[in-house]
Amino acid sequence: MAIQTHPSTITKFRAGEALVLTDTLAVEEPLGIALLHGPARQRKNLSVTMRTPGQDEELALGFLFTEGIIRRYDEVQELRHDDHHQLTVILREDVSLDLPTLERNFYTSSSCGICSKASVDAVRTLSTFSLPADAPSTWTVTPDWLHQLPERLRQQQALFAQTGGIHAGALFEPGGSLLLLREDVGRHNALDKLVGNALQAGQLPLQNQVLLLSGRASFELIQKAAMAGIRFVAAVGAPSSLAVELAQEMDLTLVGFLREDQFNVYHGLERIQPALTT
Amino acid sequence: MAIQTHPSTITKFRAGEALVLTDTLAVEEPLGIALLHGPARQRKNLSVTMRTPGQDEELALGFLFTEGIIRRYDEVQELRHDDHHQLTVILREDVSLDLPTLERNFYTSSSCGICSKASVDAVRTLSTFSLPADAPSTWTVTPDWLHQLPERLRQQQALFAQTGGIHAGALFEPGGSLLLLREDVGRHNALDKLVGNALQAGQLPLQNQVLLLSGRASFELIQKAAMAGIRFVAAVGAPSSLAVELAQEMDLTLVGFLREDQFNVYHGLERIQPALTT
Repeated sequence: MAIQTHPSTITKFRAGEALVLTDTLAVEEPLGIALLHGPARQRKNLSVTMRTPGQDEELALGFLFTEGIIRRYDEVQELRHDDHHQLTVILREDVSLDLPTLERNFYTSSSCGICSKASVDAVRTLSTFSLPADAPSTWTVTPDWLHQLPERLRQQQALFAQTGGIHAGALFEPGGSLLLLREDVGRHNALDKLVGNALQAGQLPLQNQVLLLSGRASFELIQKAAMAGIRFVAAVGAPSSLAVELAQEMDLTLVGFLREDQFNVYHGLERIQPALTT
Repeated sequence: MAIQTHPSTITKFRAGEALVLTDTLAVEEPLGIALLHGPARQRKNLSVTMRTPGQDEELALGFLFTEGIIRRYDEVQELRHDDHHQLTVILREDVSLDLPTLERNFYTSSSCGICSKASVDAVRTLSTFSLPADAPSTWTVTPDWLHQLPERLRQQQALFAQTGGIHAGALFEPGGSLLLLREDVGRHNALDKLVGNALQAGQLPLQNQVLLLSGRASFELIQKAAMAGIRFVAAVGAPSSLAVELAQEMDLTLVGFLREDQFNVYHGLERIQPALTT
């Protein structure tokens, strides 16, 4: 079992008093993710992410999938834990690696190669699931059901309850129950773990699930959601401009500032019924 | 003037009603950072970061400094805006680039090269300021002063007031006023901008300023603070285990969960006076 929390002696100042006590911290540790690929079993170090230990295999698989590096679980021959902070993903020998994709964070262009339009187009190109055409969603959820989600998430967030400082992503059945929850000091890691789990379980694309995010909705998170075929993202925090733009392009419902008594819909209103209007 | 907010038509659900209105989003756009270095003016693409436009030069300089790539502002010959999302930092010809440093996120080791100890040691090695010996701090702040900081930050956060969703970092004079505030969709970017500003102004190390963070204190943020010689970090959110470990190693005061009525001290209690004890 991975160690996900760590005790720490702290001094708490409250109401004019200082108390020495033991607090619980969320563990943050680096994980290196590497690939072995091709007939020559060539090694490629991909990234080092600061993560909360546990579900490292899900994290690596979700990262590889949402970055467009692998497209199916059966492209992976083996997941090898070199040690507790290095994981090597061994691809099948016949799987060819799209190295330009790997390098896409390091653009050589000095023109508009990295503008928001290019970023949005890249998702469309890389995604295994050509949204929105592939999966017209027929389901809807009610405003009342949405209002409950943050509280239902908090009730299940074991690490947040202990540490008060950790992100979460969760998948819900539309109008129904919580299906899967992952917590991590990095919010992109929590989502990678969810997607990695679905990849292993053969559940992608996730077009019939609602993704709940405990924090803000950045471009990166909507990108990962779109790559996994998710059609409905609800975030407790604010979305960024580029997150909204991508949601519009992908026809993905995006809800922000989700609270017990209110929320904002940035795109995809038709998946929320009954449609209330003044 | 960079565009930092963007209007968006949204539907707000509140109290059983849905209202169509115009909301303001925080702009998130990619910025590519590249180097030109050496007599051959060789090009090296460093990173693409998703940031809120504005203060791009500060962002690039702060990023280069806190990553240990440049050590002084005069190593930079020119900052060239190739366009609105590509910035090239041209180093002086005689400045040699420490390429292993640039690659430090891509470890070849399959042993403990990236454990927390190595991460902490790397900061010690890379830092221009050999904390704690270089700068024994003699100043202290009061609990009452600390309690005021989050509200003082919010009052000055122009972009947060408009969008409800953006990170901030701010530098305060110990016991005194707010000196510099930066906002960004990425919290590491907000800190990079602060450090880049100080680098340009010749104000590093920042051992006589208090850094306030609007969110959680991750390892990455404490690492950047330590690289800039900061000795006191107060965060509105929770710290991670590795952030606390680094604060201990660097003898940097770390306050978390900072509120109007309470806060936790994870290390460096002696910089908070009067010391209250039960």
